[in-house]
Amino acid sequence: MDGLTQLAELLREFPGIGPRQARRLAFYLVRRDRNWVDSFAKTLLTAKSEVRTCTSCMRLFPATGDAVDCNICTNPSRDTAMLLLVEKDVDLENIERTGAYSGLYFVVGGTTSALDKDPARSIRLRELEQRIKNSDLREVVLALSATTEGDETATFLRDHIETKVDTKTVTITHLGRGLSTGTELEYVDKDTMRNALSGRN
Amino acid sequence: MDGLTQLAELLREFPGIGPRQARRLAFYLVRRDRNWVDSFAKTLLTAKSEVRTCTSCMRLFPATGDAVDCNICTNPSRDTAMLLLVEKDVDLENIERTGAYSGLYFVVGGTTSALDKDPARSIRLRELEQRIKNSDLREVVLALSATTEGDETATFLRDHIETKVDTKTVTITHLGRGLSTGTELEYVDKDTMRNALSGRN
Amino acid sequence: MDGLTQLAELLREFPGIGPRQARRLAFYLVRRDRNWVDSFAKTLLTAKSEVRTCTSCMRLFPATGDAVDCNICTNPSRDTAMLLLVEKDVDLENIERTGAYSGLYFVVGGTTSALDKDPARSIRLRELEQRIKNSDLREVVLALSATTEGDETATFLRDHIETKVDTKTVTITHLGRGLSTGTELEYVDKDTMRNALSGRN
Amino acid sequence: MDGLTQLAELLREFPGIGPRQARRLAFYLVRRDRNWVDSFAKTLLTAKSEVRTCTSCMRLFPATGDAVDCNICTNPSRDTAMLLLVEKDVDLENIERTGAYSGLYFVVGGTTSALDKDPARSIRLRELEQRIKNSDLREVVLALSATTEGDETATFLRDHIETKVDTKTVTITHLGRGLSTGTELEYVDKDTMRNALSGRN
Repeated sequence: MDGLTQLAELLREFPGIGPRQARRLAFYLVRRDRNWVDSFAKTLLTAKSEVRTCTSCMRLFPATGDAVDCNICTNPSRDTAMLLLVEKDVDLENIERTGAYSGLYFVVGGTTSALDKDPARSIRLRELEQRIKNSDLREVVLALSATTEGDETATFLRDHIETKVDTKTVTITHLGRGLSTGTELEYVDKDTMRNALSGRN
Repeated sequence: MDGLTQLAELLREFPGIGPRQARRLAFYLVRRDRNWVDSFAKTLLTAKSEVRTCTSCMRLFPATGDAVDCNICTNPSRDTAMLLLVEKDVDLENIERTGAYSGLYFVVGGTTSALDKDPARSIRLRELEQRIKNSDLREVVLALSATTEGDETATFLRDHIETKVDTKTVTITHLGRGLSTGTELEYVDKDTMRNALSGRN
Repeated sequence: MDGLTQLAELLREFPGIGPRQARRLAFYLVRRDRNWVDSFAKTLLTAKSEVRTCTSCMRLFPATGDAVDCNICTNPSRDTAMLLLVEKDVDLENIERTGAYSGLYFVVGGTTSALDKDPARSIRLRELEQRIKNSDLREVVLALSATTEGDETATFLRDHIETKVDTKTVTITHLGRGLSTGTELEYVDKDTMRNALSGRN
Repeated sequence: MDGLTQLAELLREFPGIGPRQARRLAFYLVRRDRNWVDSFAKTLLTAKSEVRTCTSCMRLFPATGDAVDCNICTNPSRDTAMLLLVEKDVDLENIERTGAYSGLYFVVGGTTSALDKDPARSIRLRELEQRIKNSDLREVVLALSATTEGDETATFLRDHIETKVDTKTVTITHLGRGLSTGTELEYVDKDTMRNALSGRN
C-alpha cells in the first residue's frame, strides 16, 4: 500500500471524517509544500509531547516544566467547593467559554450505564473517588449531555458519588433542562416541554 | 385564469407551501373523486362554522349549542389560580399534550416588543386585561418561544401584567431554559449553557 | 370527532403534509375570514368541475364548452409525429416550461414494472395502445424519472410499444442521462459518471 | 500559543474543517497513544516524499525509484489517442473508479474563465500545450464539473485547444448532460431538462 493510501486510511480514523473526505484530505496534505507539511508534523509531535493529563481534573493541558496540574486547578480564585463533572475535554472548554462557572472540573472521559459491568473501563471511576475523597465539597454538578448515554452516566455517577460523600453536606445537581435558545414552542418535544414547565422560574 | 391555477394560487397562501407544492396539491385535489372533493369542501365549511373563539382563553374550539367557553376553561378540575399565556393555538395544544399542566390558558394571538407603538394590534391586550381583572390568580406563566420575538413579547407582557395585578400575591414565571432533550454538551450555545448552569437542580 | 379535527385528518392525506403541519393548516384555514374560506371552497369545487381529462393525452385540463382535447393536443403547430410519455401532469408541465419540446404528450398516470401482473391497473395501457394505433409517429420519447421505478416503467413501456408499432419507422428514445446542472465531478455517483462518459458529445 | 492550539489552527486550514471540529480533532490526535501519533506523522512525511507529479498527466502518484510517469500513463493497454482533462486528482480517481474509461488523463489543476487575464496561473496551460503537441490524439474529453466554473473552464480549454490541434483529426467532446441517477422528473431544473431532451437516445 502506497503512502498516500496509508495516509488516507489514518485520516479515516479521525472522528467525523468519511472515506471520501479522507482521500481529499490526503491529497490536500501532500499537495501542500514541504515546509508546511514538516511544520504540521512537528506541531503535532510537539502538541503530543507537551500535553499532559492534569492529575487533579484529568483534562489535557499544555504543560511547561514540572507542572502536574492544569491552570484551572491551580487557579487560587476558583471555588474549590464546587466540582463539575463532564464527559470530555471539549465539553469542559464549552462550559469554560461561558465564563459563568468558577468552580473546578473533573473529566470522566466517557459514558457508562447501569448495565455496564465494569464502569471503571469506560470512565475514570477510581480517579474520581480519589478526587472527592477528603475534599471539602459543597456541590457536585453532573454536566452530561441531555442524551440517553448522558442520562445513564449521570444516574450512575449520582448513585456512586452518594456512597462516597456525606450527602448532608454535599449537594449533587444536574444541568437545568428546558427550552434551549432558539426553540419555537410549537416544535418542542414532550420531554423538553415537561422540563420547561416544571423548571419554570 | 382557470380554476386549477386559481386553486394553486390559494394553496400558495398556506403557511409553508411553496409554488411547486401548491401546483402539485392542486392537481392532487382535482384528481380525487367528486365525493372526496365535496366532502373536503363540506368539512372545511363545517369546521369554519363550528369553530368559535373561547371568550375566556381566546383559543379556537369546536362549539356546540350556545357554548361560549371551551372545554378547558369550563373543566371544573382545572386549577383556576394558574394562567398560562401562549402565542397561538398550536402552542397551547403542544403544552396540553404533555399532560403536565392543569391550570388555564390565554392565547395572546401574536408577538410584540417594547418598540411596538400599539401592541394591542398584535396581541389581545384588552382581552388579557379583562381576563386577569378581578381574577383570583396565584401564578401567570409566560410560555413564549425561546426566540427574540418570544423574549420581547414575554418582557412586554411581564411589565404590563405587573401594572394590572397585585405582585405580592401573583407570581409571574417563565418556562425553564436549559438543555433540551437530545442536546450534546459539546454543541450547546453559550446562552443555553449559561441557563443550564444557573438553572441546575 | 369535531370539524377541526376532521379537517386536519383530510389535510394529512395531502401529499407531503405531516400530522403537525396538517393541524397547523387546519387552524390556519379556520382562522381565515368567512369570505376567504367560502371562496377557497368554491374555487376547489369549480376547479374540480371545470377540469377534464384530455381524451388524447390524458392530462387534466380546464375545459370550456364541449372541448374533449386539451390546448396542447389541439394546437396545430405541435409536431404530431412525436409523442412524449410522462408519468404525471406535473412532469408534463415541467417539460412544457422548458419550451424545448414541440411534440405531443401522453400521461401514463403511474409506474409499473416487469413483475407487475396487471400493469393496466397502474398505468393507462389500453389508452396508450389506442393512442399509438394508426398514428403517424416518428418517435416515442420515454420521459420517466431516473429512478428504479422510472427505469422499470420505461423498460416495460419500450417492450410493450415495440409490439404495437412498426419499429422500422418509429424510434423509441429515452431522456439523456449524465451530469445534471450544478453537479461537481468529485461527488458524481458511478452510474451517472458512466452515463456522462458514454453520452459525451 | 500552546502546541494544542497551534495544532487546532493548522487543522482549521484543512478543506471542510470548521473551528469546532478542528479543536475536536486536535484533542483526538493528542489523546491517541504515542505510537499512533508517531506513525501518523511518519506516514504523512513518507506520503509527501513518495508522491511525485506525473510528468505526463500531472497527477500525484506514489513513485518508486526513478519513475517520472504514473501507472496509468505507463500502462500499455490504455488508449493513447484519447485524452481526458479533469480539474483535480480526486475527479480523475472518481472517473477511474467507473472502469468505463480506458484512455489517458491530464489534470489541469484548477479552473479559469474568459475574463481571467493570466489563465496559466490557475491552470497548467503550458504543460497542457506540451502534452498535446506532437501527440497522436483522436479525442480530447473535457470532463469538468457542470457548474459555472466548470463550464467557463471547459469553454476556455476548448477554444485554446482548437488553436493547438488539427481540428479535422481531433474531436473535442464534453461529458454528457442530462438526468443524473435518482432524479425525479418533477424536480428537474429547466437547464437539465433541456439537456435531457436534446440528448435523448
